[in-house]
Amino acid sequence: MDDQKLQSLRDLINEELLAVYTTGPESLTRPIYYVLSGSGKRLRPILTLITAKTCGCSTVDSLPAALAVEVLHNFTLVHDDIMDDDHTRHGQLTVHEKWDVGTAILTGDAMLSLAMILLLHKDGYPPALMPVFTEGLLKVCEGQALDKEFENRNDVTIDEYVEMIDLKTGHLLGLSAEMGAIVAGVSTDVRQALRDYARLIGRAFQVQDDLLEIYSDSSKMGKSLHSDIILGKKTYLMIQALTEIPERITAALHTAEKDIATGLQLIRQSLDEQGIHEQALEYVESTIQHANDILAAVDVPSSDLMYFSNLITKRRN
Amino acid sequence: MDDQKLQSLRDLINEELLAVYTTGPESLTRPIYYVLSGSGKRLRPILTLITAKTCGCSTVDSLPAALAVEVLHNFTLVHDDIMDDDHTRHGQLTVHEKWDVGTAILTGDAMLSLAMILLLHKDGYPPALMPVFTEGLLKVCEGQALDKEFENRNDVTIDEYVEMIDLKTGHLLGLSAEMGAIVAGVSTDVRQALRDYARLIGRAFQVQDDLLEIYSDSSKMGKSLHSDIILGKKTYLMIQALTEIPERITAALHTAEKDIATGLQLIRQSLDEQGIHEQALEYVESTIQHANDILAAVDVPSSDLMYFSNLITKRRN
Repeated sequence: MDDQKLQSLRDLINEELLAVYTTGPESLTRPIYYVLSGSGKRLRPILTLITAKTCGCSTVDSLPAALAVEVLHNFTLVHDDIMDDDHTRHGQLTVHEKWDVGTAILTGDAMLSLAMILLLHKDGYPPALMPVFTEGLLKVCEGQALDKEFENRNDVTIDEYVEMIDLKTGHLLGLSAEMGAIVAGVSTDVRQALRDYARLIGRAFQVQDDLLEIYSDSSKMGKSLHSDIILGKKTYLMIQALTEIPERITAALHTAEKDIATGLQLIRQSLDEQGIHEQALEYVESTIQHANDILAAVDVPSSDLMYFSNLITKRRN
Repeated sequence: MDDQKLQSLRDLINEELLAVYTTGPESLTRPIYYVLSGSGKRLRPILTLITAKTCGCSTVDSLPAALAVEVLHNFTLVHDDIMDDDHTRHGQLTVHEKWDVGTAILTGDAMLSLAMILLLHKDGYPPALMPVFTEGLLKVCEGQALDKEFENRNDVTIDEYVEMIDLKTGHLLGLSAEMGAIVAGVSTDVRQALRDYARLIGRAFQVQDDLLEIYSDSSKMGKSLHSDIILGKKTYLMIQALTEIPERITAALHTAEKDIATGLQLIRQSLDEQGIHEQALEYVESTIQHANDILAAVDVPSSDLMYFSNLITKRRN
């Protein structure tokens, strides 16, 4: 695997996504096309394709599973954007902003059924795919529910937070790898190890998101300007700060509500001085190391998945 | 089948629904319990149980499929209530009113995965259930999308309307019967005939809903006071009226926007005088007759399903 091969997988996924839903009421086909033609990084379906290939399954055969994973992921984005009232996603208006909340709800619902139809219509796919997909969906919902619960709490512990991101992000990455392993027909041991590897990658990915939320400018993240901070969303860094320097960080958040630039500067300064920034960076690194250790213990050629791990480590947006 | 046996099936369904989701974040378990403990008529899962029994499958074995159908139906209600901004459902506040839109979206999403988990966890259920369930979900979404599209059009034909209600209501009734037939393991012919029977029952059911919307008081319907009329929702009767007496009905709708009681009186008077009320009643009757004819041609004991047809014919709320 190299950057060029990665891009060709991404191109293939992007092309196929456009064909997922072409007939149906215009008020569904248009927003679904809009969402699926967006500029996502396609990390989850790429993980499915790479895992399948690692386990000896061709890209052609694993493609429907990969597409299902990406459609599922985009379903969660469309609904989460309503809940968080995010106005932009990947540099374009969110569905509920461009159309309305009703259209966005229905777009997500329909996408979920399309994801499952992709799995059900592929001849020869093992029945084990559906329970993994369905349980994954429930876990993602539970993660999002906890995330929302945490918004109204100031005593969230790091352990609770990690449990939440494992549900919300880790399980979906785990599912992406596991579906690749299932379509390749490997043993339960290998399948579970690859799932566990990917869950940890998901955990690292989310904490890195938390870092980028605070340390990147909003154009890079492609999200609304720091809406998560304003909404009081708990992140790895904010929870540490609320534990270690509650008064200082609460004051900075209050400032951010009125003046985002100054508030953000105060938040960054507090996190840097308290060593929380550094600690989060180390947490990402050690989590990826842990994932790679699991991978190294599995009896499959690991170079492509190691390349994937590095993608996460290196990412800057 | 008699009214007492029907009630005992309903009691069984109600009891089992409460156990569908008990562990998970409180912000999900509470609204899901709230929805599933509501006072729905449980017509869809009852149809699944009756169909399964008609085809020789026990209630115990068909119960998970029946519960899945009811959970799917309630998922659509929770999301539809947000889209239509309905404030009450079955005499209690809707989820987005009691909690908020985000909670209602997530509640629906989680319920969808719970419905599928019910199907996947029952040993011995045929793989054919999942495609039927998943396609049914897509059809329901497409029906709701068309319904919303129609709100902004004044040239909807009766044929388009019937296509829409077939998607939105008919397919879910059809799915309820078909799943009962599938778990009973009958032939494809029987399965499809029972599905077609139930789709027509669903069509009649929806037009009857349209009648009740205009001719019952709101407490009986358990919905917000005639919100559908105010929203300009197209119904069987309104479409006929817009075709036959466009000016008169438009004037009555404008009156209803300001004064619902007077407007509704004008609407009823117009529909009665034009014979549209009578025509809709006849359409319901002939559709149920068509359904019963299909049923009579199938080689299964039809008395329990005939009882079900009568339930629909007789219903007053």
